[in-house]
Amino acid sequence: MSPHMTPEEFRRHGKQVIDWIADYLAGIESHPVVSQVKPGEIRRALPSRPPEHGEPFEAVLSDLGRILLPGITHWQHPGFFAYFPSNASGPAILGDLLSSGLGVQGMLWVTSPACTELETVVVDWLAGLLGLPDHFRTDGAGGGVIQDSASSACLVALLAALHRAGDGQVTSDGITRRYTMYVSSQTHSSLERAARIAGLGAQGVRVVDVDPRTLAMDPSHLRTLLDRDRAAGAVPAMVCATVGTTSTTAIDPVPAIGEVCAERGVWLHVDAAYAGVAAICPEFRRLNDGVGEYADSYVTNPHKWLLTNFDCTVLWTADRAPLLAALSTLPEYLRNTATTTGSVIDYRDWQVPLGRRFRALKLWSVIRWYGAEGLRAHIRKGVALAQDLASWISADPGFELHEPHPLGLVCFRPRWPGLTAAEADRATLRLMELLNASGSMYVTHTRIGDRVVLRMAVGAAMTERRHVEQAWEHIRWEHAALSGTLPAED
Amino acid sequence: MSPHMTPEEFRRHGKQVIDWIADYLAGIESHPVVSQVKPGEIRRALPSRPPEHGEPFEAVLSDLGRILLPGITHWQHPGFFAYFPSNASGPAILGDLLSSGLGVQGMLWVTSPACTELETVVVDWLAGLLGLPDHFRTDGAGGGVIQDSASSACLVALLAALHRAGDGQVTSDGITRRYTMYVSSQTHSSLERAARIAGLGAQGVRVVDVDPRTLAMDPSHLRTLLDRDRAAGAVPAMVCATVGTTSTTAIDPVPAIGEVCAERGVWLHVDAAYAGVAAICPEFRRLNDGVGEYADSYVTNPHKWLLTNFDCTVLWTADRAPLLAALSTLPEYLRNTATTTGSVIDYRDWQVPLGRRFRALKLWSVIRWYGAEGLRAHIRKGVALAQDLASWISADPGFELHEPHPLGLVCFRPRWPGLTAAEADRATLRLMELLNASGSMYVTHTRIGDRVVLRMAVGAAMTERRHVEQAWEHIRWEHAALSGTLPAED
Repeated sequence: MSPHMTPEEFRRHGKQVIDWIADYLAGIESHPVVSQVKPGEIRRALPSRPPEHGEPFEAVLSDLGRILLPGITHWQHPGFFAYFPSNASGPAILGDLLSSGLGVQGMLWVTSPACTELETVVVDWLAGLLGLPDHFRTDGAGGGVIQDSASSACLVALLAALHRAGDGQVTSDGITRRYTMYVSSQTHSSLERAARIAGLGAQGVRVVDVDPRTLAMDPSHLRTLLDRDRAAGAVPAMVCATVGTTSTTAIDPVPAIGEVCAERGVWLHVDAAYAGVAAICPEFRRLNDGVGEYADSYVTNPHKWLLTNFDCTVLWTADRAPLLAALSTLPEYLRNTATTTGSVIDYRDWQVPLGRRFRALKLWSVIRWYGAEGLRAHIRKGVALAQDLASWISADPGFELHEPHPLGLVCFRPRWPGLTAAEADRATLRLMELLNASGSMYVTHTRIGDRVVLRMAVGAAMTERRHVEQAWEHIRWEHAALSGTLPAED
Repeated sequence: MSPHMTPEEFRRHGKQVIDWIADYLAGIESHPVVSQVKPGEIRRALPSRPPEHGEPFEAVLSDLGRILLPGITHWQHPGFFAYFPSNASGPAILGDLLSSGLGVQGMLWVTSPACTELETVVVDWLAGLLGLPDHFRTDGAGGGVIQDSASSACLVALLAALHRAGDGQVTSDGITRRYTMYVSSQTHSSLERAARIAGLGAQGVRVVDVDPRTLAMDPSHLRTLLDRDRAAGAVPAMVCATVGTTSTTAIDPVPAIGEVCAERGVWLHVDAAYAGVAAICPEFRRLNDGVGEYADSYVTNPHKWLLTNFDCTVLWTADRAPLLAALSTLPEYLRNTATTTGSVIDYRDWQVPLGRRFRALKLWSVIRWYGAEGLRAHIRKGVALAQDLASWISADPGFELHEPHPLGLVCFRPRWPGLTAAEADRATLRLMELLNASGSMYVTHTRIGDRVVLRMAVGAAMTERRHVEQAWEHIRWEHAALSGTLPAED
């Protein structure tokens, strides 16, 4: 007897799972946003040995609700204001389900032509929606590709940049001299990691100064560092400018940075992982300033704010040649007529892994369900709620608002009269812990100028105005209560 | 008005998608295995611009069937014998659906404790099922982690190996001297790619001889190369032994290779991407010979033959310390109490990307639905069918069987009396094209000793004995027909 789930069993259990998810989404506010379990609690509740005999599918669903759900931190909860939003949406989940159901592996064009060609179409669509330059489109010298994360995408960009900077020598001989990469203190940690992975080491990373108020990269300091390194015999390979940093959504001046890069022939990578998708609204199109003129590569994450569940990052490059030269291989067992005639794209040459899911389906499904106007409405709503929140914070003498806050993230600091800076920072972290332990909201923190500040990112699909209002009331109340119990208030 | 899909709309459309997939799986044999579209055909059938207004979900399903399906190569079709199987299964698809529906991002323990702890449990379960050594389990010095692909996993292993070989210098200073990696001509191309990505370059890869008959790596030549490189001042960083190569499922002698690595203090990575899961059957447990004594890292892909849809690779290491040292970063915005107390695992430090899906759900769902005995039955069935196929080929004077064929892959060559080797190779490729154009089967090819051979990998979940019989009859018939039309037969 076959142990496989038949199509009819799949039909039955599939509908149970759909009902489970629909009920979960409808009732998501009944769960605490942040899981309240202790380390090891879930693990201890699970059997230490796998079953010898198969179990009914209902056992999986039952244990999911009973054992795992208390260990879930609910990223789709309307009170989720931590990190950045990681939007799922109905059409994305169903597009992803179709990808799993088809079970194709799109490493080569020939292994499922539709997997490759739909991806080309949707990344070109998205380039158009975001107002990105025509040379990022696949019918020019460049092109876009779906990756799992901005971390992987910036590694791929760095490999292409190294290939170009070393005239191909890095790909053939490896790192045989000092190659350098340029970031700021506000650049995402994945860039340093990419430099470590690519053999530059942490020492190959140069940290450009930022404006102390806006936290944006200083182009003249970049110029100084580039010239100093080159004079010392190093080969500057890549500059990363960020549009919307993870810490505070600071925006590096891409046009000025790009001019420095162009003068010196250095690859400019623009990391717009969070903010880039906002350019779907004409009023935020200025986020792309300088990208068309100067960017060699550009990345944004539909899996953050654009309603496409993880993983779905899009990397574009203005010239795919160095990227392909850095990453292509063609063993005999992958040779096929379509590849060798050069008439098709094989996206496995555009990424670190060989295999690939049919991820274009979920982005296609999202764009079609929402249409451009629906996507714009979602972005605008998040920004509007964040700006309202900022105005409330700004009007409250108990808090200090960080400016600027151009998009959906608001950073702020509670004031703690009478406390030293170190005591106040501890009090802010304590406040954050109490808020997150309450079950009704999740916020995270960062540091600005060495002071702890809270980050509140608005943009979860289910977040309505009332959730932001309630969260703000909760913060004010908890801050007042905590102030009352602190020694300084005695 | 909200543009979002409500939970009730999701319930309705979700059930449509489940029905679509159930019908697709039930009727999969009505499609040609290999898509017959021409390059650009799918792309031209899709609109060049995205919709401005949202569309009903039915439009997505309709276009999927009408436009995309002809461009799909059906990896789950029972006539799919190409590459290696990339099994999906009902419980895997549904586990993946639950992951998409929950929409959690498990980069840190705290961002969903259950995502981390279930992963720890299932990779430990799998280590037990495969008879892997106890020190690969998470409660020892090592541990397992789910990655997207064996390509990424071997890159991570190489980074850990480089960290250890250079006493941490690679992570801090980058590649400042010649580091070398050792493979054979049969090793998967992802290893060379990993060396290029990590800054060793193609020149840092040493190719060890293989036994011309078994295609297994020669440990004494490995010793010679290691000693020669070390004498020349290079630092040997990693040896990759393969258990079941992609080309022919050759098995490198891990115990002898491991002994050489141990004597010389070089990291041994064992790539068992395809074959490793077969060790779930006691009769194939010998695939692990030497792993417990010598392997520093080991990888196998449940997304190939173990019924868990792509992507699901498991990487184990005997010592997680160098891996974490190579990849950890801790920016302020990711700091949290659980991480800083060291009481939890943060799997983002075990991989290239920062973000991660809840992939453990699908592996958990598969192991529970099938149980160990169901998984063993699936592996045994694939091996038995492949061995039957090999016996038919061996008995047919028109064909030459490649030996050995220990698992589910059978390599063979049609004989073409009167043709030169080059003509015969072209005829074999022509035969393959005719078979793949027929719509009833998909086989691929490789080269052994410079001669083209066909690869037929048995192990798709739906493949029954009759499909293998029919495929073999089809090959024989097409070979005879083609032989009759060839000039040499005149």
